[in-house]
Amino acid sequence: MPSRYLNFRCSVPWLILLLETLFLIRFFFCFPGAGNIYSPSNFYPEFQDVNHMVIFGFGFFLMVLRRYGFSSTGFNFLLIVLGVQCCVVVEDLLIFLRVQQNEGGMKSLAKAVVSMTAVAISTGAVLGKANPVQLIVMSLVELIIFYVSRCINRTFLQVPDHLTLMHVHLFGAYFGVAVTSRFPEPPPGLDKNRGTPKSDLFSMLGTVFVWVFWPSFNSILADSKQEAVLNTYFTLAVSAVAAFMLSALTSKDGKFRMTHIHSAVLAGGVTISYTAHSIQHPWIAMILGLLGSVITVLGSHCLQRCFNPAFKLQDTSGVHFTFGLPAVLGAVAAVVLCVVEEGISTQWNNLSSLGYLIFIDIGAFCQTISTALITGLITGLILNIKLLKTVHVSKYFDDQFYWEVSFKSYQI
Amino acid sequence: MPSRYLNFRCSVPWLILLLETLFLIRFFFCFPGAGNIYSPSNFYPEFQDVNHMVIFGFGFFLMVLRRYGFSSTGFNFLLIVLGVQCCVVVEDLLIFLRVQQNEGGMKSLAKAVVSMTAVAISTGAVLGKANPVQLIVMSLVELIIFYVSRCINRTFLQVPDHLTLMHVHLFGAYFGVAVTSRFPEPPPGLDKNRGTPKSDLFSMLGTVFVWVFWPSFNSILADSKQEAVLNTYFTLAVSAVAAFMLSALTSKDGKFRMTHIHSAVLAGGVTISYTAHSIQHPWIAMILGLLGSVITVLGSHCLQRCFNPAFKLQDTSGVHFTFGLPAVLGAVAAVVLCVVEEGISTQWNNLSSLGYLIFIDIGAFCQTISTALITGLITGLILNIKLLKTVHVSKYFDDQFYWEVSFKSYQI
Amino acid sequence: MPSRYLNFRCSVPWLILLLETLFLIRFFFCFPGAGNIYSPSNFYPEFQDVNHMVIFGFGFFLMVLRRYGFSSTGFNFLLIVLGVQCCVVVEDLLIFLRVQQNEGGMKSLAKAVVSMTAVAISTGAVLGKANPVQLIVMSLVELIIFYVSRCINRTFLQVPDHLTLMHVHLFGAYFGVAVTSRFPEPPPGLDKNRGTPKSDLFSMLGTVFVWVFWPSFNSILADSKQEAVLNTYFTLAVSAVAAFMLSALTSKDGKFRMTHIHSAVLAGGVTISYTAHSIQHPWIAMILGLLGSVITVLGSHCLQRCFNPAFKLQDTSGVHFTFGLPAVLGAVAAVVLCVVEEGISTQWNNLSSLGYLIFIDIGAFCQTISTALITGLITGLILNIKLLKTVHVSKYFDDQFYWEVSFKSYQI
Repeated sequence: MPSRYLNFRCSVPWLILLLETLFLIRFFFCFPGAGNIYSPSNFYPEFQDVNHMVIFGFGFFLMVLRRYGFSSTGFNFLLIVLGVQCCVVVEDLLIFLRVQQNEGGMKSLAKAVVSMTAVAISTGAVLGKANPVQLIVMSLVELIIFYVSRCINRTFLQVPDHLTLMHVHLFGAYFGVAVTSRFPEPPPGLDKNRGTPKSDLFSMLGTVFVWVFWPSFNSILADSKQEAVLNTYFTLAVSAVAAFMLSALTSKDGKFRMTHIHSAVLAGGVTISYTAHSIQHPWIAMILGLLGSVITVLGSHCLQRCFNPAFKLQDTSGVHFTFGLPAVLGAVAAVVLCVVEEGISTQWNNLSSLGYLIFIDIGAFCQTISTALITGLITGLILNIKLLKTVHVSKYFDDQFYWEVSFKSYQI
Repeated sequence: MPSRYLNFRCSVPWLILLLETLFLIRFFFCFPGAGNIYSPSNFYPEFQDVNHMVIFGFGFFLMVLRRYGFSSTGFNFLLIVLGVQCCVVVEDLLIFLRVQQNEGGMKSLAKAVVSMTAVAISTGAVLGKANPVQLIVMSLVELIIFYVSRCINRTFLQVPDHLTLMHVHLFGAYFGVAVTSRFPEPPPGLDKNRGTPKSDLFSMLGTVFVWVFWPSFNSILADSKQEAVLNTYFTLAVSAVAAFMLSALTSKDGKFRMTHIHSAVLAGGVTISYTAHSIQHPWIAMILGLLGSVITVLGSHCLQRCFNPAFKLQDTSGVHFTFGLPAVLGAVAAVVLCVVEEGISTQWNNLSSLGYLIFIDIGAFCQTISTALITGLITGLILNIKLLKTVHVSKYFDDQFYWEVSFKSYQI
Repeated sequence: MPSRYLNFRCSVPWLILLLETLFLIRFFFCFPGAGNIYSPSNFYPEFQDVNHMVIFGFGFFLMVLRRYGFSSTGFNFLLIVLGVQCCVVVEDLLIFLRVQQNEGGMKSLAKAVVSMTAVAISTGAVLGKANPVQLIVMSLVELIIFYVSRCINRTFLQVPDHLTLMHVHLFGAYFGVAVTSRFPEPPPGLDKNRGTPKSDLFSMLGTVFVWVFWPSFNSILADSKQEAVLNTYFTLAVSAVAAFMLSALTSKDGKFRMTHIHSAVLAGGVTISYTAHSIQHPWIAMILGLLGSVITVLGSHCLQRCFNPAFKLQDTSGVHFTFGLPAVLGAVAAVVLCVVEEGISTQWNNLSSLGYLIFIDIGAFCQTISTALITGLITGLILNIKLLKTVHVSKYFDDQFYWEVSFKSYQI
């Protein structure tokens, strides 16, 4: 029944070709000299870890649907490699506009790969509902807005550069949630938006990869790498243990639920991302990991029962509670820890300076989340115009729509 | 049929919560200052390798049963992250008791992760027979006893610290075998304790990971890293080649058997673990790799036909021949090599010093193996009391017992 | 029906034993001193990446057939570990003959692992058609000839050592194609030489591993590592993007085809391998990545429709267009870039020196490809003599022939 399928031959390749041509022209004409891009740096192993985590880890982490395995990994791969080039070009533009200093080389590439996490997270929210054209448009718009949001934080709120990057989970999750709210809901009888044990195993494989490489992710741009690695490791460990505890407590019959484990083991890494480099006592990191897991598992129950039906949105791989809620918790914890530390060091005398600190942190948080939600809603509306060949709800969550697979043999 | 399943809601979460609270209190009150835990070190890439190997590699290596995929990876993950925190706390206690020097930071964490291999190995022996409560109790008991056994070796027998850690395979395997001997045997007709080609492929995936990262495992705490890496690599290479040779020689029709390959490719890494840093000629390492494979493949035939039925024990993933026998061989080889080297350097004059060396090495070996067997038997008896909700034999090897999976869709 | 299967008990194990004995004797007698093999070096993380890529990445990359999963990973593993030892021995012999300098230790091992890529690629061409005896003979012959070919390039054509190694893709692909042309074609009705979605997913898993580790592969022996890493990353990124574009353009209904993605995402890494260390502008690398993808995707259509039927050869996993064509392109690009750079620096005055450069580069290329084709044909003829127990065409592409698997449960 080929006639019932949309044909992307006239859209996807030309869109990709157009983008690649733009990137090439930009690299050819405007790149500020080869000396800069090949500047020496010695963090290749960490870069490799983060690259592996984003491309392999997230690709397989998203493989939660029974008939959407090819698209989960394939489209994640496509968006990351396209986005990394876009990031380098955007950064180049910002350097040209003198908004940002030139760092060049591996560091610039590492920042690009870290930024791509936002796209990987947002993709999880619209997983199976957006076609490749929509995904490419979404990821480019998201990247550019994320860079603008980071610029605002850096320029007007004086947030350090590596901390503005750590808003990536918050931005990605709420942008994704806002975009997915504009997509029509799948019909209730559809069974393709569930996983099978096999897809859950592949997803577990990806989750473990993301888990293992998370200390590299949080430490790659931090000044005090050693602290960032150890705090992240302890947080992740507590978070993973708490995930099992809470899953057994909240599910029927006291059994473990795989989706809880997938989400909650990573919650710690998200929660600690703002503060990994500055926490001085491992027990604080461990408590953050515990709280991150609690908010993720409770959030997964509350959101799926109350929030999502109320707003008629469907967050396919649960990025709201996996990345969004722990990131909010992490941002709040960062403010509290910063205030307590500053307060103790000044013996609570300099209250105006404290107030300024709180204003800055909360300002950056509110700016990021509101930019994500507003631009996400607008992007969602744009993505659902006829021109972009929206997928009909009955065709959601299906690889056959985009890949040459024989129907009979497909069951993951 | 929920009534026929045991409900772990009242046990697992509270046990985990109790442990986490203890860890947190310990980290809060007794940790000897933050300056120590964040001490600088430069072996993050090796630590990452070992962490990846233990969590991902062993998790998928254990996926040998057709309907136990979730539990194999999931419980391995839970036990490792719980155990690493426990290790750090136990080490802290030992420093407090002045039995051990404080090393702090990444090195302490690396030792904790290496020690967890013992738990991962023991888990393999009781795979599918122990419920999560039993597994958690077993792993904590095992860890504490392993630390005590290491202390005895270090204090009374003057074994260097990094060599006491290399007893981890020996201890893990014989502790696991002793524990599993106290579990009732599954009925002979049960077909769930076999693998399928798909589970074998996932297990192969894990095996390759463990294989690739083994040089990092053997060299992470050694003084002469370069030698340890190269010797381990050559041993593993010969061991992998010999695995294929012996599998074709001993199986029906001269075909390869996947379980042979899984076990025997790793045998070399276990065999060389005691001597990787001190061997001066690669051919010695290669011969050890060959012997390791031989003892594993022959052991797998002998143990499964004679030893296991005689002792009525069932070693689900064959840890006795995969890790136990090569570790015994490695310990013997370490004694022989040490004696020969010492003998040559003193021209066989100082026989009393030689005798002392032999006494020390054999003493450490006998102490470790007997502690493992005796405490393993006692732990096995404790685990099978009613309180811990032992699983009925007919419910062995089944994910459904612990995880929310739909029966129909489950076949890995 | 065991009688209908060939029994490899009398051949495979003894062949392996013979080889291992030879290696051991060589290591025992002829190794030029232990001091050399353990010489210090600091590129362990990169070595680990390349090792992981060749053993794990290629093993799962080759898993493209529905009933050949065990053999794809298992035999790749066996050939690599056997070949690495063979490489070290061959290198030892060359040092003894004073054709090569002694570098020893990790560097020698890294070169051995890089050389093994040729074998992994050639294995892909005869995947499912050659039995283990044939594969072992093929890989040893191939390795020795590759070393000889490298020696000729280095000694007579003055090509730098690390560039001679980069001919590994060209040599591997054309050797494999020449060997497979001597194997009888499978009957047209056979459905075992196709993949299933599950095998494609495992293959995707391997492809992503190879992709992620390719910058390490291209930079491990280069002088200017930073440039090699960044150029390779940009090339791979453009190549991956172009793979999706071209797949949608050339396939029916504008859908993506998984085999295109598998091949074309890697094309960039092959294309850039000769020039990764010397390119000074990222846009050149990006154009090479684009051209690499174009030649791979177009090549896959042309070769499968015109070339392969004309020459009656069947290239199971498409190594000709995945590695062969991009390597040819890369060699041509290397000549062009070298000439342009040299021409610009001498202002096109010294034309005789330019001519000499072109002669050297084209000479090395022609020597490598013709050696690969001629010796490949001869090897293919030798492999198909009765003595090596050739597999009947009806038994092609089947794990059951070599592994103990139950037929019923096998469908990957």
